[in-house]
Amino acid sequence: MQVTADRYAEFMKIAHEQALKGLNEGGIPIGAAVVHLPTGKVLARGHNQRVQMNSNIRHGEMDALENMGRVDAGVLRECAMFTTLSPCYMCSGTCVLYKIPLIVMAENNNFVGGEDLLASKGVEIVNLRDKEITAMMRDWIASDRGRAVWDEDIGEVSS
Amino acid sequence: MQVTADRYAEFMKIAHEQALKGLNEGGIPIGAAVVHLPTGKVLARGHNQRVQMNSNIRHGEMDALENMGRVDAGVLRECAMFTTLSPCYMCSGTCVLYKIPLIVMAENNNFVGGEDLLASKGVEIVNLRDKEITAMMRDWIASDRGRAVWDEDIGEVSS
Repeated sequence: MQVTADRYAEFMKIAHEQALKGLNEGGIPIGAAVVHLPTGKVLARGHNQRVQMNSNIRHGEMDALENMGRVDAGVLRECAMFTTLSPCYMCSGTCVLYKIPLIVMAENNNFVGGEDLLASKGVEIVNLRDKEITAMMRDWIASDRGRAVWDEDIGEVSS
Repeated sequence: MQVTADRYAEFMKIAHEQALKGLNEGGIPIGAAVVHLPTGKVLARGHNQRVQMNSNIRHGEMDALENMGRVDAGVLRECAMFTTLSPCYMCSGTCVLYKIPLIVMAENNNFVGGEDLLASKGVEIVNLRDKEITAMMRDWIASDRGRAVWDEDIGEVSS
């Protein structure tokens, strides 16, 4: 494999840039990148589009997969999903469907998604515990914009 | 609840019509409908768009949720997902994310998706064992069009 653990920070930077792009658009700051492990090529980038596209399904990981378009069968089995936050059940289930073997997340302090599902299906999970990305997400959730939309994005009802 | 089991066939007919719409477009014949259980209103319809939109994520259930646009938090907790086929892990995970309490499927003879995940999260699953929809899907999978795209849609590699 071309991509080894010493390069994870490099690809997470791309996911982080996507999150910041979403933030600048007034959206939810979560970003993702799909990386082909044998070659190190970044096949797709994406960021959460709930606000921008009025979307229930375009989380960062889903947006990356949608931006990718259809690929030859089997390609996703050789890819890692880099994401700035622990993937929710939708995004985790999607990784299971396409047999993506590796999820690299920046953090799961602000949200824990479908990690039990991923683990039960043999998907490798790496948590980089990135302090900068954790602080960015924490601050956004606590902001006026965050309070207005975050619960909706994770299927919760605001109290 | 306005919607009781004696009305399931009525709503499955809408999902079936969506599947036939996809078939006529040259796409994968899977359809879905989101039904608000307290009122019986059909909040969204959708069908698989892999071929039509070059999409990795627009399965029938996902297309319905995307066509719906953002809804008030908590509405999906009062909805059923009607789908012509057992929902894959992506679609099952999405139902778990949004706490959709009931999945009504036409059949799971042609494919079994994330039913273990749904059951483990307390989602009620009803299988109508619809013979007409089962035959439609079986015949399509065996057709030239089906052979060309079905494996890709369920994350398998053609032999």
